[in-house]
Amino acid sequence: MKAERTPVIEATKKIGQKVTLEGWVQTRRDHGKVAFLDLWDYTGLIQIVVRGGLDEEIKSQTPVRISGTVQERSKETVNPHLPTGKVEILSDQLEPLGKSESQPFDIDSDLQIETFLDHSPLTLRSKKSRAAFRIQAEIAQAFRQFLTGEGFTEIHTPKIVATATEGGANLFEIKYFEKQAFLAQSPQFYKQIMVGVFERVFEIGPVFRAEPHSTTRHVNEYVSLDMEMGFIDDETDIIKVGHRFMGHLMTVLKPLEYEFSLFGAKLPEVSSEPLIKTFSECQQILLKEFNRDITKEPDFEPGDEKMLGEYFAKKEGTDFVWVTGYPTRKRPFYTKPRDDNREISRGFDLLFRGMEIITGGQRINDYRELTESIKGRGLKPEDFEYYLEAFRYGMPKEGGFALGLERLTARLLGTENIRLTTLFPRDINRLTP
Amino acid sequence: MKAERTPVIEATKKIGQKVTLEGWVQTRRDHGKVAFLDLWDYTGLIQIVVRGGLDEEIKSQTPVRISGTVQERSKETVNPHLPTGKVEILSDQLEPLGKSESQPFDIDSDLQIETFLDHSPLTLRSKKSRAAFRIQAEIAQAFRQFLTGEGFTEIHTPKIVATATEGGANLFEIKYFEKQAFLAQSPQFYKQIMVGVFERVFEIGPVFRAEPHSTTRHVNEYVSLDMEMGFIDDETDIIKVGHRFMGHLMTVLKPLEYEFSLFGAKLPEVSSEPLIKTFSECQQILLKEFNRDITKEPDFEPGDEKMLGEYFAKKEGTDFVWVTGYPTRKRPFYTKPRDDNREISRGFDLLFRGMEIITGGQRINDYRELTESIKGRGLKPEDFEYYLEAFRYGMPKEGGFALGLERLTARLLGTENIRLTTLFPRDINRLTP
Repeated sequence: MKAERTPVIEATKKIGQKVTLEGWVQTRRDHGKVAFLDLWDYTGLIQIVVRGGLDEEIKSQTPVRISGTVQERSKETVNPHLPTGKVEILSDQLEPLGKSESQPFDIDSDLQIETFLDHSPLTLRSKKSRAAFRIQAEIAQAFRQFLTGEGFTEIHTPKIVATATEGGANLFEIKYFEKQAFLAQSPQFYKQIMVGVFERVFEIGPVFRAEPHSTTRHVNEYVSLDMEMGFIDDETDIIKVGHRFMGHLMTVLKPLEYEFSLFGAKLPEVSSEPLIKTFSECQQILLKEFNRDITKEPDFEPGDEKMLGEYFAKKEGTDFVWVTGYPTRKRPFYTKPRDDNREISRGFDLLFRGMEIITGGQRINDYRELTESIKGRGLKPEDFEYYLEAFRYGMPKEGGFALGLERLTARLLGTENIRLTTLFPRDINRLTP
Repeated sequence: MKAERTPVIEATKKIGQKVTLEGWVQTRRDHGKVAFLDLWDYTGLIQIVVRGGLDEEIKSQTPVRISGTVQERSKETVNPHLPTGKVEILSDQLEPLGKSESQPFDIDSDLQIETFLDHSPLTLRSKKSRAAFRIQAEIAQAFRQFLTGEGFTEIHTPKIVATATEGGANLFEIKYFEKQAFLAQSPQFYKQIMVGVFERVFEIGPVFRAEPHSTTRHVNEYVSLDMEMGFIDDETDIIKVGHRFMGHLMTVLKPLEYEFSLFGAKLPEVSSEPLIKTFSECQQILLKEFNRDITKEPDFEPGDEKMLGEYFAKKEGTDFVWVTGYPTRKRPFYTKPRDDNREISRGFDLLFRGMEIITGGQRINDYRELTESIKGRGLKPEDFEYYLEAFRYGMPKEGGFALGLERLTARLLGTENIRLTTLFPRDINRLTP
């Protein structure tokens, strides 16, 4: 009979005992008559010591079954970041459970990004990639956990849509039987409609942007974390929820010390209250502190966000700046303008470490006002018939935000190119793997 | 200053106290000088009693703020299914927080399905719809909770793909800049690749099937709950995980008694061990018990699944039958054949109440065997280069399954048409709302 399998993480509790592990060889290091393997399974990574000979076919990526005794590692070889870093397995039996060819390169070395992406079925098995996508999974989980705890209901809305969300550019077109259709750029309309059904909703799903440029901070398909809620006073209520989520997230990520250590990244502190600045205050700071005049511009450029990030990190000691009061004309038609000055909107962004990672705002909830706003942009209300129906039949003040999962992961890890925190990225040049 | 808001569910704990609620009017019933409102918010539904006059503009779907005193309902008016069914609010102040037009029909009445779907921004606010999609959210949550507890990592894989998963039919085509691309029919290849990264993975996301027919059990976009895991012995290990998930799910759904009562639906019992039958055993049952000869057929028809469902419900007292050993030729190329008879596969389905809701199996994990299987179907291994890379570099025995979220919801509620448990369904005739 087959010996019962012990997950790697459980082995740490069994010092002096015999265990059987199953997992992949991450690395093999031969030192004369002793070979060291790093073995990983779904619970962690652990060192295996093999005395005597070790078959050549046992190489990096070979799936194996190993039996042996758990022992403490000598002090100088302890890995303090790794939850399993204090123990190792002295193996007395080792059997391959699959085959691996020799690899064309060391996946744990620094690879050119194109090489990394072309071979992602292999390179995603590197320690750093596994860490990045494990953190990403925790971010999504934290978002859900937090919002579920606040009474939000999860929804799944269609990605094939008949019309553009906001008037039309950058849409991927689909042949839908005999009709024309598009890929959804955002679940915006659906999540607003669903406020009328559940009051508080969230969605985690793909969004598609046919932006024909290639930058380190854009991909053409990404995962959007969306939330929307009713019965707010104004956009500050949404900002507060977003800020509390950030605090919750850092608590959730704290135990992933090993994963962050691989990137030399540090978790940010989240203040108890959000730092909220207006767009015009930020314009003044850019002018006075950086001699950069965008007082006539309706939005920041990436360099402006970077300067503001540095300024507030130094001045206020925070990596998070919520900017509200963007000009109405630069925000989508459904954005609520301020009553005292309709040129200023209740739309906001969150700048995290000098980059916008959240966009949100209070929306127009009055049917007539919304219809007028659509017309004001040169659009036709009849093209938004279904969306408008939700507002005809009762909608309180409401708002929400969207957060890009891959971009947040990249900012947390200090990764410059978003492709490294996007699972199988799609860009203008890349459709595979 | 505005009175602090009490969520509806909290009001049940405050008998004799003054509270302020915010929510939507679900229904208004006028009885002479007294009006009764059903009010709902994100936590539940509660009865409001308004003495004296009530403004005409307060109608179904009007968002309102209500202040009043919590009191026990008289015995004969208690709603035993509703968590808030024992109390009501005697209102002394009521203020609209938005406007609602008069509705063209009573959303809580039985509507024609086309009327329901055409007006879903309104009709989704019916009690039954809200219940159905609340249950759906709990199913997705239960899936994640259960698998996370078993050490699975959540992934998000691309929905825009360069090639067909399984050879090509029923794909939606996209214009991807200057290239041709498709919408993913399933995350199959990616989840298998990701077994090499996390060993155990799951994904909840949309899948797209360009099936040009219209039936009550198909839509062209749906949410697939996918899992995949390594280091199994054979498909029985996957079936066991699936069956334990079903048990977990029913525990999670148990408190939603009110929601199920609206459909007159009963939660199924889940046996401690899965009932596993082979395809050929099922063929014999159909022949002997129903005089239906499909012994030469490679798969069931819907009517066969229904008969088998009824048979096992009566004979074995269970709504869940796992069928394995489907003919290899009828399953995808990556399905593992049995060693003792390669014409029989290790692919399985779960029939729940006479309908297939899960498809899964053990996969081929050996690179050479997989390459040969691709060729055997007349396909070219070079078209599967990226997928095959994961198997070249070490893959243990592995397998997984996929579960259709909307179909499971429909079967649990006894809803005949899957469009009623699909949020904004897409079919050959419907692209809106």
